[in-house]
Amino acid sequence: MSGSTFGKVFKIATWGESHGPGLGVVVEGCPAGLSLKESEIQKELDRRKTGQSKVTTTRKEGDEIRILSGVFQGKTTGTPIAMWVENHDVDSSKYELIKDLFRPGHADYTYQMKYGFRDYRGGGRSSARETVARVAAGAIAKKLLRRHKIQITGYTRQIGPLVAKKIDFKEIERNIIRCPDKAMSEKMIDHIMQARKKGDSVGGTVEIIAQGVPAGLGEPVFDKLDADLAKAVMSIPAVKGVEIGIGFQAAEMLGSQCNDAFTLKGKKVGTRTNHAGGILGGISNGEDIVVRLVVKPTSSINKGQDTVTAQGKKAKIRVEGRHDPCICPRAVPIAEAMVALTLIDHWMRNQGSRLGK
Amino acid sequence: MSGSTFGKVFKIATWGESHGPGLGVVVEGCPAGLSLKESEIQKELDRRKTGQSKVTTTRKEGDEIRILSGVFQGKTTGTPIAMWVENHDVDSSKYELIKDLFRPGHADYTYQMKYGFRDYRGGGRSSARETVARVAAGAIAKKLLRRHKIQITGYTRQIGPLVAKKIDFKEIERNIIRCPDKAMSEKMIDHIMQARKKGDSVGGTVEIIAQGVPAGLGEPVFDKLDADLAKAVMSIPAVKGVEIGIGFQAAEMLGSQCNDAFTLKGKKVGTRTNHAGGILGGISNGEDIVVRLVVKPTSSINKGQDTVTAQGKKAKIRVEGRHDPCICPRAVPIAEAMVALTLIDHWMRNQGSRLGK
Amino acid sequence: MSGSTFGKVFKIATWGESHGPGLGVVVEGCPAGLSLKESEIQKELDRRKTGQSKVTTTRKEGDEIRILSGVFQGKTTGTPIAMWVENHDVDSSKYELIKDLFRPGHADYTYQMKYGFRDYRGGGRSSARETVARVAAGAIAKKLLRRHKIQITGYTRQIGPLVAKKIDFKEIERNIIRCPDKAMSEKMIDHIMQARKKGDSVGGTVEIIAQGVPAGLGEPVFDKLDADLAKAVMSIPAVKGVEIGIGFQAAEMLGSQCNDAFTLKGKKVGTRTNHAGGILGGISNGEDIVVRLVVKPTSSINKGQDTVTAQGKKAKIRVEGRHDPCICPRAVPIAEAMVALTLIDHWMRNQGSRLGK
Amino acid sequence: MSGSTFGKVFKIATWGESHGPGLGVVVEGCPAGLSLKESEIQKELDRRKTGQSKVTTTRKEGDEIRILSGVFQGKTTGTPIAMWVENHDVDSSKYELIKDLFRPGHADYTYQMKYGFRDYRGGGRSSARETVARVAAGAIAKKLLRRHKIQITGYTRQIGPLVAKKIDFKEIERNIIRCPDKAMSEKMIDHIMQARKKGDSVGGTVEIIAQGVPAGLGEPVFDKLDADLAKAVMSIPAVKGVEIGIGFQAAEMLGSQCNDAFTLKGKKVGTRTNHAGGILGGISNGEDIVVRLVVKPTSSINKGQDTVTAQGKKAKIRVEGRHDPCICPRAVPIAEAMVALTLIDHWMRNQGSRLGK
Repeated sequence: MSGSTFGKVFKIATWGESHGPGLGVVVEGCPAGLSLKESEIQKELDRRKTGQSKVTTTRKEGDEIRILSGVFQGKTTGTPIAMWVENHDVDSSKYELIKDLFRPGHADYTYQMKYGFRDYRGGGRSSARETVARVAAGAIAKKLLRRHKIQITGYTRQIGPLVAKKIDFKEIERNIIRCPDKAMSEKMIDHIMQARKKGDSVGGTVEIIAQGVPAGLGEPVFDKLDADLAKAVMSIPAVKGVEIGIGFQAAEMLGSQCNDAFTLKGKKVGTRTNHAGGILGGISNGEDIVVRLVVKPTSSINKGQDTVTAQGKKAKIRVEGRHDPCICPRAVPIAEAMVALTLIDHWMRNQGSRLGK
Repeated sequence: MSGSTFGKVFKIATWGESHGPGLGVVVEGCPAGLSLKESEIQKELDRRKTGQSKVTTTRKEGDEIRILSGVFQGKTTGTPIAMWVENHDVDSSKYELIKDLFRPGHADYTYQMKYGFRDYRGGGRSSARETVARVAAGAIAKKLLRRHKIQITGYTRQIGPLVAKKIDFKEIERNIIRCPDKAMSEKMIDHIMQARKKGDSVGGTVEIIAQGVPAGLGEPVFDKLDADLAKAVMSIPAVKGVEIGIGFQAAEMLGSQCNDAFTLKGKKVGTRTNHAGGILGGISNGEDIVVRLVVKPTSSINKGQDTVTAQGKKAKIRVEGRHDPCICPRAVPIAEAMVALTLIDHWMRNQGSRLGK
Repeated sequence: MSGSTFGKVFKIATWGESHGPGLGVVVEGCPAGLSLKESEIQKELDRRKTGQSKVTTTRKEGDEIRILSGVFQGKTTGTPIAMWVENHDVDSSKYELIKDLFRPGHADYTYQMKYGFRDYRGGGRSSARETVARVAAGAIAKKLLRRHKIQITGYTRQIGPLVAKKIDFKEIERNIIRCPDKAMSEKMIDHIMQARKKGDSVGGTVEIIAQGVPAGLGEPVFDKLDADLAKAVMSIPAVKGVEIGIGFQAAEMLGSQCNDAFTLKGKKVGTRTNHAGGILGGISNGEDIVVRLVVKPTSSINKGQDTVTAQGKKAKIRVEGRHDPCICPRAVPIAEAMVALTLIDHWMRNQGSRLGK
Repeated sequence: MSGSTFGKVFKIATWGESHGPGLGVVVEGCPAGLSLKESEIQKELDRRKTGQSKVTTTRKEGDEIRILSGVFQGKTTGTPIAMWVENHDVDSSKYELIKDLFRPGHADYTYQMKYGFRDYRGGGRSSARETVARVAAGAIAKKLLRRHKIQITGYTRQIGPLVAKKIDFKEIERNIIRCPDKAMSEKMIDHIMQARKKGDSVGGTVEIIAQGVPAGLGEPVFDKLDADLAKAVMSIPAVKGVEIGIGFQAAEMLGSQCNDAFTLKGKKVGTRTNHAGGILGGISNGEDIVVRLVVKPTSSINKGQDTVTAQGKKAKIRVEGRHDPCICPRAVPIAEAMVALTLIDHWMRNQGSRLGK
């Protein structure tokens, strides 16, 4: 039972391979009556696309989105919205060389074991290129969320040992690493470029803040909001961990330090601190939702590595291709999309939670 | 759309409140022909139950499991297996005092906001007592996994600043904190008891290892094995973060350090290191699966805290009740159960992944 | 992947066997704040229960419902509602004799083939006794529907060759066959009693009318309202066919005869005839929903029949036990429950169909 | 919560409107390693397409299928298979005239009520044109079923009062009405042409036979094989009823007549008659599966009919456009597709039903 669908009420099904005809998504459950233009989707795709700066891969895909259904006279009709982008700059030649080699850190070996054979061109379905479909769907989710005054903001928080010291939302899209701390962003870019020169890659963390989420979203005991957010971001390629609010720091805290005291913010109940990251008992509490994820260094590196062949012999591999030296800046819009998809789904799931609602 | 079901093929639906008649689970999708006794389920419940040591709550529940359906002549019939435990030691009197107060760190406020009112006795459905149903279902999952030579082992890895330095599986169940490092376990217990004396609580981390998982489990691109594991453990009360393999350390690594080189282990392909925690591209690679979760300090503390009332007034609260000073030792069997439920579901989902399989 | 759950938003999971400890259901997705008493559920169960008249089986089950969770201070809490009835009058002795014989018309053979062995006591899970759980859940669905002014009414329309000629809702519960035509009900009862004397059984049809359903329920293109109703009633034991509105008569009609002309009913749009049975394009149109199902004659008959043994030898069988000579009167509340469960699920699913709704 | 997905393990999501850019489907859960060519899909689409004879609409769509993902080197990869056909012969001009009129028998009114507005061009998503996506997915289902020796055959059984008297499978595709009785097929065609001349349309029934289905498919108590088949075919536009095996005739039978006696067929257990239509207790018994559906006369007729406008005024309507005078011949491949999709899904769902299977 395959797993290319996400969400229960606002639901998406994605398809496509890195070097096939294209990639697409079918969005089901978007309410009728939402005005929607291709240009609004395109804007998000452009934030994710390749070749946008020196810290991303040089593959050049226009990633031009086309809406194929579900929109009539500029409005959503309530029926499935199909969208796709065609692949253009497909250079599969380099992949012929490695079709029998398992690239370390990649899914070559696991796809081979699961399916018996694999589309080895650019990683096929395992390529991060599949995330273009997530971002397209996420653009619709974001638009719906904005109608409910919910705003999603993502940024690079850490690159290697370098951690952002201040969080200035206006700065984020001004630098190519999408760091909210201008001074740190420059150091981060240097750090990446140095690794790239050596044929190496670097890791980092990305943080997503959702503001304006009303109290009440999340469906215990399994589909808790934090549980579904964790799944959403962990499903992004290269992510190896996720934290909500204080995250792993909670291990070293006392209850009296970790608990967020309740207080009144005007007439609304709020918390004085936000260690919980906006979620208590799996349900949003009205404070900012804070999700943090760690992105491993890009697996494709231009350095010799030990591996084995599909025929079971030892071998050396050096992955040339065109790769991002650091995934974080492009992971930002992808993670935003996954958080947005999770929130709009939960927003809709919450509608029937009590009578008269 | 409520969220008390988990899994897609091996699927569970849980129900019950802390101070209601009892708690239960319906397990759907367990294959026919598995021999199953209540005593096998009981064994796991006993590892989770209250009052088992000085580092757990003093509430005394026998947690005696009863199988109500799906088993005939000692074997599963392929139809739903219903199980439940009755609640006995229910003392709701203390909760009357706090029915209009929101306990910091608890779900009182969020349940109130979501549902308009709440069962305030012992937290109702938001109580960690609901996990008894997970552990019961997990016992069946574990038994099925063992038939496929898959073994799940969990332990407390860290308590406050104290981290286990050696991992000796045989040691785990010999100490009340379930730490695989005997020397460290004693320090951990001291640390907890000191916090308890002050009416406070402590956090920690739990690690789960799944050995013997074949390559091929996981359903990209959304139902990746790591994504579903993240959801599974994040849905456990008090968990604020989850890591797979190297986890957040990946932020500071280079690609050349982080990638696990492939090698031959006898005739099988394996990896030299296991930074990936047994999962590549969302699919198991045959190495040990490593999942780590952080458990926040128990929210119920015997200290005065600021809060507000349901009527919107400022107030002080001191939670007396009977509570675990540290959740980790009891979180171990719960996290094992969630990992087991995820793995058996994926094991079954993988069956149709290729022709002839 | 087992199939004991029904519904997507208002969702139920049932469990239990004819001769096990009992039967139950977990209802998920019922909104918080609905007042709910066991006696309201009981009322519906009493309409379904055995031994209620000479045209039903003599097995005597009190079918006393017990609510185990999800209700606090007389109101639903929004969390799963677990209910069960214990089995009391269990007489498995007769079944020992036929444990290796496949009863014609029953599921003995197919369960054996699917699961490799079976609970042969009273048919185990394949017994119509499982429908007690459906009726319990359906009672909640009906209560919710009534809040939306939707009323479900079921009756026996045909027994053997005898068809009700008038439809008087007030008459239905006054006769033991649940026929809305008093004169015909007496003939139907005679017809059944004569078959019973000969050890035989009779078939019939049941009709369910849902009044007050607003236009707009149903989710094309697969989860059309008629499609989900068809599934719902076809899943009831012994049902072999289902019609919506005009049903099979449509085969012999012209388009100009079959189409229902639109007209104005006060300010509302309505149709002059209702051949469509209240559903157009899979969506309710505001007219009465009309669902008709055929119930085969009870398979258990006290007559010699040819069969084979589990060991593959020819044999004769005569099913003694205690059985309904005609299923229709007890099928009425069961079919009502299934229609109610389908409608409330679609009512809730429709909530997000357009912005501002 | 929208409903354009079908199936649980072999799962499809369809999209597209009658007069939009095209229609498509994403097939998830098809095992890796199946050889698959566009020409195999095309063959089934050609059986469904418009303009194939004088008893079908004159709209001319090539319905050329294109596979966009999930196939590599001629074999399925185990990842989602996206396919689509572009719309070409789109003539929306006639629909401008009726954009404010509700066509009797159509979904214009109900879509308007559900979604607040609608794509009125050719019925938008409610058009039977959406079934092209079902047939494309069904072609893959059929291919998988043939590997398991399961064969699906459909035909027109009845047109108006004319019922096929013999069932000769070889005859079916030789006549334009797809009737297995050659002599009757000619009368049926005459009957349709006479109605067409008068601007009218006719109804009929379609029968689908699945041969070679092993005993054991079906998931009680809700996802019974007959329940899922009923849903599958009832979701086809214009279908108003469905029968399994003997169907509505069961109402007039005695148990002793209706029960199918078990017997030995070689070493296999079989039944002497097949009133059950191959399904007992919701599980296949190894006999032929027999599904019958009634198709109402085409709603679009070239005759004046009463209706109302979107503004709530009485009006007359005459639907000109290009329409099938009888839906049956084109309903045959659509119904086959739906039966095939249901069977392959259940085939895959049954895999985990017992240990060692």
